[in-house]
Amino acid sequence: MIIDGHAHVILPVEQQLALMEKAGVERTVLFMTSVHPERASDLTAFEKEMATLTAIISGQRNGSQATFERSAQEHIKIVQAYPARFIGFGGVPVGLTHQATAECLQKYVLEPGMRGIGEFTLAPGQIDLLEPIFALSSETGNLPLWVHTFIPLTLEDIRALIRLSQRYASVPLILGHLGGLNWIETIKLAKELPQTYLDLSATYTTLAPTLAIRELPERSLFSSDAPYGNPLVARTMVEQATTDPGIRKLVLGENMARLVTR
Amino acid sequence: MIIDGHAHVILPVEQQLALMEKAGVERTVLFMTSVHPERASDLTAFEKEMATLTAIISGQRNGSQATFERSAQEHIKIVQAYPARFIGFGGVPVGLTHQATAECLQKYVLEPGMRGIGEFTLAPGQIDLLEPIFALSSETGNLPLWVHTFIPLTLEDIRALIRLSQRYASVPLILGHLGGLNWIETIKLAKELPQTYLDLSATYTTLAPTLAIRELPERSLFSSDAPYGNPLVARTMVEQATTDPGIRKLVLGENMARLVTR
Repeated sequence: MIIDGHAHVILPVEQQLALMEKAGVERTVLFMTSVHPERASDLTAFEKEMATLTAIISGQRNGSQATFERSAQEHIKIVQAYPARFIGFGGVPVGLTHQATAECLQKYVLEPGMRGIGEFTLAPGQIDLLEPIFALSSETGNLPLWVHTFIPLTLEDIRALIRLSQRYASVPLILGHLGGLNWIETIKLAKELPQTYLDLSATYTTLAPTLAIRELPERSLFSSDAPYGNPLVARTMVEQATTDPGIRKLVLGENMARLVTR
Repeated sequence: MIIDGHAHVILPVEQQLALMEKAGVERTVLFMTSVHPERASDLTAFEKEMATLTAIISGQRNGSQATFERSAQEHIKIVQAYPARFIGFGGVPVGLTHQATAECLQKYVLEPGMRGIGEFTLAPGQIDLLEPIFALSSETGNLPLWVHTFIPLTLEDIRALIRLSQRYASVPLILGHLGGLNWIETIKLAKELPQTYLDLSATYTTLAPTLAIRELPERSLFSSDAPYGNPLVARTMVEQATTDPGIRKLVLGENMARLVTR
């Protein structure tokens, strides 16, 4: 089973299914989004979407409650309409009270049948905002968390995330985008912590997934980060990184299947 | 003709030719290197190569004269041994006197029959070190320059590079790695300056080459940056970015052919 481990909602859904088809992807782990660069028809429209994305990734903007609600419902609807094609990870806002966080987890993750929580995009120095999420996950069946670790996060933030993970060792933690510029250090940190997984998307060098797969073949996860990446390109990258058929199977789907069907 | 627009010497050369073969690349624009990550057999050896690379890319280390000489001769030998497969760009150190720079250009670029100059990796704030190179290129037939514009360069450095290019409009300037994190701004700057070209390697999102090709189809250049990237992955990325057969041909080789056979 080929599973794209990370993609955001692309509209219309037929476009997303076509991208999966072209890459031979059977299922995609789908995340909500309030940004749709795939619909930008010119450079100006595109810049506007990317500016919103940058604000979100920088943790400067959580979006309004109305935007969150609309994006979450759009996502839930698609995941539930295509249960054979999508596995959902549900979004939960950070910075709320423990009680409000628990209610969001119930509403956006547990009730709609999501299999994990994320993507979390935090500002530098804010990793501790994830503490209630780790705590709630450990109380409700250890759903995996998916955390963006590319820019603007620094190596110090990644280390803070690892420290938090050490306190909640039962909660699987997916290090999204493999630590970005800090990929060598991130691979080394992940080696010491068996509950961590390496997401291979958004890498600017094929050496990063190559080394990740060599060091942690059972914890490396193929993913496209579509629409920011392309499933066929991401799959080709994994297949060029390792020629071993058994390891390819693990990375292209079996590792993720194990993580979401526990 | 499919031309990989940017790759460094990979040893043994058979490994480089095999990577080209697998991607259907007929010719590769080849650059010298003193770093060989492809030969690192374990994580420690790999880290050592990458630390050297980081120092070079950061402009903190030009390498010793002996290392430069050895790397340059290794490169010249390979380019001359496989004239049907490689097109050479020759390295010239920066920060020398005008006279010494001219001698290096003669020795490492003109005499061995190189078709361009680079890769230049500068520290932030040091772009003006390229002024003598632009001047010499404009005096000796306008050989294209290839400048690394990914990290650690900032948008301010890229703007300084564009200002320098405006003073030497006859010299083609290849913006290596498409401006890195600053790809949207870099595409916009390049649109205003017809002597600039966008190298599509080392992008962490397929949106960057997609937009580059959409905006500047006749000035976008397919490249792998091997061994840091993989030719087949890079080619797949271009082919996913545009389905237009004519534009694919331009980006995958014709644009570069025009640039090196003027």
